Amino acid sequence: MEVKYDEIKVIGFDADDTLWINETYFRDAEEKFAALLEGYETKNTIDQDLFKMEIKNLELYGYGIKGFVLSMVESALELSNNNVSHDTLHKILDIGKEMISHPVELLPDVVEVLKQLSKKYRLIVLTKGDLLDQERKLERSDLSEYFHHVEVLSDKKESNYQHLLDHLEIDVKEFLMIGNSLKSDVLPLINIGAKAIHVPFHTTWQHEQVEDHETNGKEYQTISGLKELLKLV
Amino acid sequence: MEVKYDEIKVIGFDADDTLWINETYFRDAEEKFAALLEGYETKNTIDQDLFKMEIKNLELYGYGIKGFVLSMVESALELSNNNVSHDTLHKILDIGKEMISHPVELLPDVVEVLKQLSKKYRLIVLTKGDLLDQERKLERSDLSEYFHHVEVLSDKKESNYQHLLDHLEIDVKEFLMIGNSLKSDVLPLINIGAKAIHVPFHTTWQHEQVEDHETNGKEYQTISGLKELLKLV
Repeated sequence: MEVKYDEIKVIGFDADDTLWINETYFRDAEEKFAALLEGYETKNTIDQDLFKMEIKNLELYGYGIKGFVLSMVESALELSNNNVSHDTLHKILDIGKEMISHPVELLPDVVEVLKQLSKKYRLIVLTKGDLLDQERKLERSDLSEYFHHVEVLSDKKESNYQHLLDHLEIDVKEFLMIGNSLKSDVLPLINIGAKAIHVPFHTTWQHEQVEDHETNGKEYQTISGLKELLKLV
Repeated sequence: MEVKYDEIKVIGFDADDTLWINETYFRDAEEKFAALLEGYETKNTIDQDLFKMEIKNLELYGYGIKGFVLSMVESALELSNNNVSHDTLHKILDIGKEMISHPVELLPDVVEVLKQLSKKYRLIVLTKGDLLDQERKLERSDLSEYFHHVEVLSDKKESNYQHLLDHLEIDVKEFLMIGNSLKSDVLPLINIGAKAIHVPFHTTWQHEQVEDHETNGKEYQTISGLKELLKLV
């Protein structure tokens, strides 16, 4: 599909799994969680129970590590029929603390791509999740200098984007969003009349996955890595 | 002390314990936590251990209910020497969920004061804590219509304020902040050359308390309720 980017003046980047690795650490945490509870249930049941618990708590806790840890604690109590050891509960809390403290690992070519694009476009970061976590990661990433603005959103629905673009006085026709999640970074933008490019990450959280019918007929390009951006815009 | 507010064009309001009740729910939660663990330690020791745990975890978890709940879980394991019942752990998780779901209770005269001031000034909300929680509270409060901008900060230090005022293109001399915390809402503003008015709430979290020497010589007024603002500005 051929899409023109001539009008674009501002480019928004998702952060988690677009600029740096994130989902991998959640998958690792889930592996550790399943190993801690393997005496009580099959791995499949443990995985499913934790996912269900996260979705049940999502409206209350929102996205981010702290809500994930609280869901792990609750799921551990449930899966073990209240027999989980206190040592295991300590280890679950520690999994969360390690995730929060984890160094930032940038994805390939991020610095080069941002450096090039920042000469021609206004770049902004649009991420969702925990405010403190995201600010901390951006600081650790050393990428702040390339961005005019950083916005942490509680969610990434059409209304969140529309409200933010209005606030930043960005014309929707001049805005291009780059991100790994079709659900959060691509479809809402296409639906409000902006452009978006999909850069898949090898792992996508089940909750972020979309059905074929949601993407049918939507005009966006998919690239295999950020470096391809330099040829497109 | 006489302070002039002639130059003020923008007024910032803290939210928790300035526009609506917040600290009271944390105190109530601490009471419930102490009651749950009363078999293991004295109330005084329980209170102190939880506070120490919160401060120890503050850099990792930041402000907000989810970090508080994680600290309660960790403190319960510690205080009980790993003997706390799973029923108690469930109840601790429930305390957090109740806090997150709690209806917003506005402080006296908030609507009238905001309505009056919004005719003459640009009003903004500057709050710290969890992004989702604060957005949710603002929505439930029905106060959004009075504010030009809402900013949730991960912390309220001088640099956070300076950065935000720069971003919003607000001259520091034209900015007045209103809030219940000397440490977070008053002193950092005075220190960067803005004005601030202190509206104490009856309860202040220990971590927000300041020493006399920090306030000595700082020019700010203290009022007993928001309604007094209408006479001052």
